[in-house]
Amino acid sequence: MKKNAFYAQSGGVTAVINATAGALLLEAKNHKNKIGKVFAGKNGILGALREDLIDTSKETSAGIESLSYRPGGVFGSCRYKLKDIKTDINQYKRLIEVFKAHNIGYFFYNGGNDSADTALKVSKISKEMGYELTCIAIPKTVDNDLVITDSCPGFGSAAKYIATSTLEGSLDVQSMSESSTKVFILEVMGRHAGWMAASSVLARSEHQSAPHIILLPEITFNQKRFLDEVRGCVKNEGYCVVVVSEGVKNYRGNFLAESDTKDAFGHAQLGGVAPFISSLVSKNLKMKNHWAVADYLQRSARHIASQTDLDHAQAVGRYAVKYAVEGMNGTMPVIKRLPTKSYSWSIEPAPLSKIANLEKKLPKNFITKNGFGVTKKGVEYLQPLIKGEAKTVFKNGLPEIKKLKLELVKKKLGAWDI
Amino acid sequence: MKKNAFYAQSGGVTAVINATAGALLLEAKNHKNKIGKVFAGKNGILGALREDLIDTSKETSAGIESLSYRPGGVFGSCRYKLKDIKTDINQYKRLIEVFKAHNIGYFFYNGGNDSADTALKVSKISKEMGYELTCIAIPKTVDNDLVITDSCPGFGSAAKYIATSTLEGSLDVQSMSESSTKVFILEVMGRHAGWMAASSVLARSEHQSAPHIILLPEITFNQKRFLDEVRGCVKNEGYCVVVVSEGVKNYRGNFLAESDTKDAFGHAQLGGVAPFISSLVSKNLKMKNHWAVADYLQRSARHIASQTDLDHAQAVGRYAVKYAVEGMNGTMPVIKRLPTKSYSWSIEPAPLSKIANLEKKLPKNFITKNGFGVTKKGVEYLQPLIKGEAKTVFKNGLPEIKKLKLELVKKKLGAWDI
Repeated sequence: MKKNAFYAQSGGVTAVINATAGALLLEAKNHKNKIGKVFAGKNGILGALREDLIDTSKETSAGIESLSYRPGGVFGSCRYKLKDIKTDINQYKRLIEVFKAHNIGYFFYNGGNDSADTALKVSKISKEMGYELTCIAIPKTVDNDLVITDSCPGFGSAAKYIATSTLEGSLDVQSMSESSTKVFILEVMGRHAGWMAASSVLARSEHQSAPHIILLPEITFNQKRFLDEVRGCVKNEGYCVVVVSEGVKNYRGNFLAESDTKDAFGHAQLGGVAPFISSLVSKNLKMKNHWAVADYLQRSARHIASQTDLDHAQAVGRYAVKYAVEGMNGTMPVIKRLPTKSYSWSIEPAPLSKIANLEKKLPKNFITKNGFGVTKKGVEYLQPLIKGEAKTVFKNGLPEIKKLKLELVKKKLGAWDI
Repeated sequence: MKKNAFYAQSGGVTAVINATAGALLLEAKNHKNKIGKVFAGKNGILGALREDLIDTSKETSAGIESLSYRPGGVFGSCRYKLKDIKTDINQYKRLIEVFKAHNIGYFFYNGGNDSADTALKVSKISKEMGYELTCIAIPKTVDNDLVITDSCPGFGSAAKYIATSTLEGSLDVQSMSESSTKVFILEVMGRHAGWMAASSVLARSEHQSAPHIILLPEITFNQKRFLDEVRGCVKNEGYCVVVVSEGVKNYRGNFLAESDTKDAFGHAQLGGVAPFISSLVSKNLKMKNHWAVADYLQRSARHIASQTDLDHAQAVGRYAVKYAVEGMNGTMPVIKRLPTKSYSWSIEPAPLSKIANLEKKLPKNFITKNGFGVTKKGVEYLQPLIKGEAKTVFKNGLPEIKKLKLELVKKKLGAWDI
């Protein structure tokens, strides 16, 4: 029986989330006997609740293909978490009502562990309500913190951006260090897991020692030990490059740079640990230092995306459709690393119940004994994920952004107040 | 008469300063009747004072060619300004003494307006001392603030990095703005001239309105007008992207985020205006916002270098040698924009006396009436400079950095205390 599909992006975007969308849309065309139109949620799941459905069948082939190199989240994403079922089941009912009105039988939710949880809940409730719906969560997060999958689409490109930026910034500070800046601090994302900060280790090579210190959220910050390490490094190397995760905490369990705002998921909004570290270095070591905060640039940098990551992102988009038409409800396509000498991988299905709301931190054996570095085992894990340079299309010196139609489907239901 | 040459890098590096060095070294080989060895100063001019001379003739061809895509300053740079001639002529005498000891007849100084000034002084003093020395300053600065030359090698690549990052970050915040971050702030370099901040305007296109506000050092910051502009922008567009120059000042003439450290040239060391703007937006508009500080990343990002800029950088390196062997002492090779419909350029000689210590700010007609944007005239100037993607060589997913020998020449003189 032919049904329409609904696809939504959730949470922070990645350099390759649109590539996942593009691959999904193309694969859906291979299953015209089962999948009719694919509607995309305008601003993620909010688009479903508000019945703001983008009709992707209106886009040209060139438009769909340009998604493979388009940064951002083309249909809009959101940080909106559905309320708890026990306190408010109406949101879930509304979702099903919208799906029913538009003959939607497939729900694709492209996000992190919050989204896997939502997809799982929607799958359960639709079953309870007797509405046939195949729910597939598609992995996406620069945080690389989903369990079961070997890595998360989006991470490899962020890692490539961070390693490249660390390398370039390190060569810069090294050039000047004899008479000027001694310490360069780069702040990267990673609320609870240090995957992104760890990826900076890839900048190292036999004749390039930076980054010298990586501050991970998995390791409690010890000011004295840190400053001693910086002092020793500048003494030996002439300069010191520090990569610090936004999620680093002190012994009291507080973020080093906690702001008092919280996002819609109740997570503290972070930023500003680099200037904090900078002022420690200035005050205690009296060393000239510079700091950079990559923020959104690291997760949106499609221009330096990893080909491996792009391949992953497109594969999970394709497999999401394959699993859906096979009726594999409550599933996520995950990346499996194969036990071959050189890196190879495949896509496998995994049950959402084993993924939802769980978080994968850096394993202990990826962190060096002194807590300031990444082990060989960690490097072996990270290295293949940044391999290959994904093709970028430039126009007038800048990444090309093709105009899409993003036409909304005519509403069939009344308005809904979020 | 055959003489050796001395080449030194000065000040902050650019993505293409090594490309200038590489082109100069290759061109020198075309003039073997006049130029013997080329020595590079280890850590810039300090290398001459300390007699730390790198013998570039020891490098392989592959090594020299790899300079075209190597970030950083391969021989080391410095922020060391020679003392005033009137208070301490000994430094200049020492320079000449080292040059004499190593039979150096050509002095190439690759830097900004400070370096042009130094090259000019050295040229005068060598003449006074009766030592024949041809002094050539080679332009290099991401600040794009040298006079006479149409643009400065290094700027085009920084501009391409900034425009690309602004575009990618803007698509990111746009995706999320409906339910999350409303304002994204990107801090870029530019102490006194707004060239780098202005270059972010290139991210705009018919279907991409960001950046919405550009804060230039040429325009005094007015908090109320700025906040009104942000409020209006979020109301109309749903989000607001602000690119702010580190050099923006308030009506009192103070930098918005002045730190109390100064560099070796006596310039205030800046950084941190993005968090300042962020807190203004949070406190006054209660809008969720994110901020990034590009710092060194913007000037070292060889992976996103502009082909036009790379061409400029290599041309000034080649012409520096051509002018030197023609005995054009006290000269800088500058870029001239030709009056053709599509962008074309040539290299011309300009006297250092007309360049030293002068600073070119954004012309008034490049700035929109409200002070928050860049005019069509500005865009027409900036656009060609970011055109083309310079080839980057990757190895294992990262820009390749070839090992160079960097062998020092045996010293002939006693030690020198800087």
